[in-house]
Amino acid sequence: MPAEMPVRLRVFSLNCWGIHYLSKHCAQRYAMIGDLLSKEQHDVALLQEVWSEKDFHFLKKKLGGTHPYSHYFKSGFFGSGLAVFSKHRIHDAFLYKYTLNGYPYMAHHGDWFGGKAVGKVLLNISGLAVHVFVTHLHAEYCREPDSYLPHRVVQAWELQNFIRHTSAGADVVILGGDLNMHPTDLGIRLLQSYTGLKDCYNETASFDGCEQGFTHITANPFTHEQELIPFGGGIRIDYVFFKGSKSVDVSCESLSTTKGPVPGQPFPYSDHEALSTELVLHPSEDGKGRSNQEKDSTADKLSELVNIVTEARTEVKVGLHCAERMRYTAARTGIMGLALLLLELAIAAVPCFALGTEHPFPKASFYLLGALCFAILFCTTLLYIFYGMEVKALQGAEDQMRLAVGSLQERLKAFPKGTYEGRSQTEPDSCDPATLEPGD
Amino acid sequence: MPAEMPVRLRVFSLNCWGIHYLSKHCAQRYAMIGDLLSKEQHDVALLQEVWSEKDFHFLKKKLGGTHPYSHYFKSGFFGSGLAVFSKHRIHDAFLYKYTLNGYPYMAHHGDWFGGKAVGKVLLNISGLAVHVFVTHLHAEYCREPDSYLPHRVVQAWELQNFIRHTSAGADVVILGGDLNMHPTDLGIRLLQSYTGLKDCYNETASFDGCEQGFTHITANPFTHEQELIPFGGGIRIDYVFFKGSKSVDVSCESLSTTKGPVPGQPFPYSDHEALSTELVLHPSEDGKGRSNQEKDSTADKLSELVNIVTEARTEVKVGLHCAERMRYTAARTGIMGLALLLLELAIAAVPCFALGTEHPFPKASFYLLGALCFAILFCTTLLYIFYGMEVKALQGAEDQMRLAVGSLQERLKAFPKGTYEGRSQTEPDSCDPATLEPGD
Repeated sequence: MPAEMPVRLRVFSLNCWGIHYLSKHCAQRYAMIGDLLSKEQHDVALLQEVWSEKDFHFLKKKLGGTHPYSHYFKSGFFGSGLAVFSKHRIHDAFLYKYTLNGYPYMAHHGDWFGGKAVGKVLLNISGLAVHVFVTHLHAEYCREPDSYLPHRVVQAWELQNFIRHTSAGADVVILGGDLNMHPTDLGIRLLQSYTGLKDCYNETASFDGCEQGFTHITANPFTHEQELIPFGGGIRIDYVFFKGSKSVDVSCESLSTTKGPVPGQPFPYSDHEALSTELVLHPSEDGKGRSNQEKDSTADKLSELVNIVTEARTEVKVGLHCAERMRYTAARTGIMGLALLLLELAIAAVPCFALGTEHPFPKASFYLLGALCFAILFCTTLLYIFYGMEVKALQGAEDQMRLAVGSLQERLKAFPKGTYEGRSQTEPDSCDPATLEPGD
Repeated sequence: MPAEMPVRLRVFSLNCWGIHYLSKHCAQRYAMIGDLLSKEQHDVALLQEVWSEKDFHFLKKKLGGTHPYSHYFKSGFFGSGLAVFSKHRIHDAFLYKYTLNGYPYMAHHGDWFGGKAVGKVLLNISGLAVHVFVTHLHAEYCREPDSYLPHRVVQAWELQNFIRHTSAGADVVILGGDLNMHPTDLGIRLLQSYTGLKDCYNETASFDGCEQGFTHITANPFTHEQELIPFGGGIRIDYVFFKGSKSVDVSCESLSTTKGPVPGQPFPYSDHEALSTELVLHPSEDGKGRSNQEKDSTADKLSELVNIVTEARTEVKVGLHCAERMRYTAARTGIMGLALLLLELAIAAVPCFALGTEHPFPKASFYLLGALCFAILFCTTLLYIFYGMEVKALQGAEDQMRLAVGSLQERLKAFPKGTYEGRSQTEPDSCDPATLEPGD
């Protein structure tokens, strides 16, 4: 336990929108981001959508004096886009690539090529083990219907699993990033209620930023105004979450967001707003002697968690049904391609048997049709394999969810009947993590 | 802390060789495995290569009475092949799919389609948090040269990372599976020295099994004798590892392997030998007051670990060089395909300009060549994407290794000079995990 408690920790998070040739004013914006970071000197800066390694190295060079430690998470074809800059030595880094992340043939959406993931770095700040996570989930291109919802729910499931399983030894846990989910969306509820992570926006003592904490706003010239109007002029999809441990209490002293245009600059830092927060780490007041009321509240939380996991399981089942249908369609199309090829070969083979008759097939058409059949067979085989893997991943997540519900219900049985039923409306962000950890 | 210490824990591990239509006597062997497990009643059975879910469900039904809890890890196209049967409730399950796992076009090797992974289940045995891991690494089809070595080294790196990061809250850690590496191979040394896991074969008080603990032997009629003769008639590639924690000491009381043919049965359980071990869990004798000698030994371990990670980094760099060359070849072939297509179109376009002259291209050849060019372009694009992802994954692992070496060297500096230099020949299996954990 460090002597210098309380410890102050300043965290920054920004989706940098760094798609070369597509994002506007990329180079100038990275220069602005670098200036901001070297001026503000946060303890940790969590960046997303740093798609080009060149940009990471540009920032690394620029921040050499203020943030001597950094890590860029490589994954997928382009990279995960995730980068961490830190004033404190990074002792360890670990990456978990999400199993599902869109479709390679949806190249214009590009998520699949990004290899989206959650990255973890391990810092030792004043003797405390601080586990810092950064992530970026699959984008939401259309809210209703959102064809990527099952993928994002599985990502949120894997994210909470990864954080829960890897942070048992942490004094402090911090998660920042673009989660591409609104605050009441299933994935956010799942993440918060299972891990006990608290949302800085809900916890902060002082807030200075966009209305309702929006991080994607119409006032930003890089956003599409029309897309945001249905949501009241903005959405909150970027977050910083935190939690303490048995030995450390964490509180959020302040949170601020950028507000679109930057005074004295020609344009904003990105199409997302940046988050800056100040966390304060205190020695924990021992919570062992919990009152009965707190126990009931834990039963409420467990009961609520069961409901949320069940909701997630339903969503995964919808995705599974869809993936199975697509796999079936790929198989059927492949079989049709094969049948066509065989038919063509049979027709072409006729003259061999009926010697002397004229060839029934013009050569060009024969080769064209043959090539088409091969192309169909090849593509449908690839698609069948891809959908087969999607089915397996969805089934795997659903199995894990079923197991979790079983285990949670088992733990609920230990509570006296009537203490939690019909009272599952508590705030998920006030959930007690200690009771929900694996092995508990 | 449970009252009933010491706790006895019996663990079983077997690669079931369950490839339908390829593995011999699959159904009969699964029946035999089911009989063995229901008779022996181990606490936990860790199975690999259960490629068909039907076989898992067959075992689940058969073991319903003795092992009411089970989990099948789904991953890749066929599944990960990993299954766990347990006498104790499984509270949680988590899967980490290895980033690299062979090549999809090496279909006859099949590893890529299996989606190899490490699975974790969380058990609560007599009040102790027992974290059980099961894994299966990429096969070694040829030892010299082994083109899959960089992939297997990255898998071993990810395996140790996963175990280290997810087992901070564990009282006991157990890992079983087919690691496809010999006991002194780089991956095993990396795994043991970084995690502090102990090898049952080296630790057991009593051993009954094949010579040198071999798990792949010439006496087994399903193995290829010729392949094993250079290694003295067998190899040891299946393992059970374990470690305790600050509160629990673990010792290995016995280890046994099957020895090929099974008395009273027409054939063995599998082409691998099964492992059965009995672990004993004691309350830990407090190790806080370490002597100077132990401190030096820790410095030795750190120094040795630096050497091993550096060796792994070199291996990954070799793989990276190879992957970059393959990506380059794919790009060059693709460009040649494109050039050929453009050339063909140019030649075909000539008659449009030179009206009246005869068509320079027989139609059939034109279409055939066009189709060939398209096929080349399509395939090389896929290969370019695949190799691009392989490059990113290898770079990512290398970055993590570089970071780890930096952090380990930083910790080494804290030791007085001369206490560890030139003394890095200690046994990796005697490594102290407490000093090597993240956040330490």
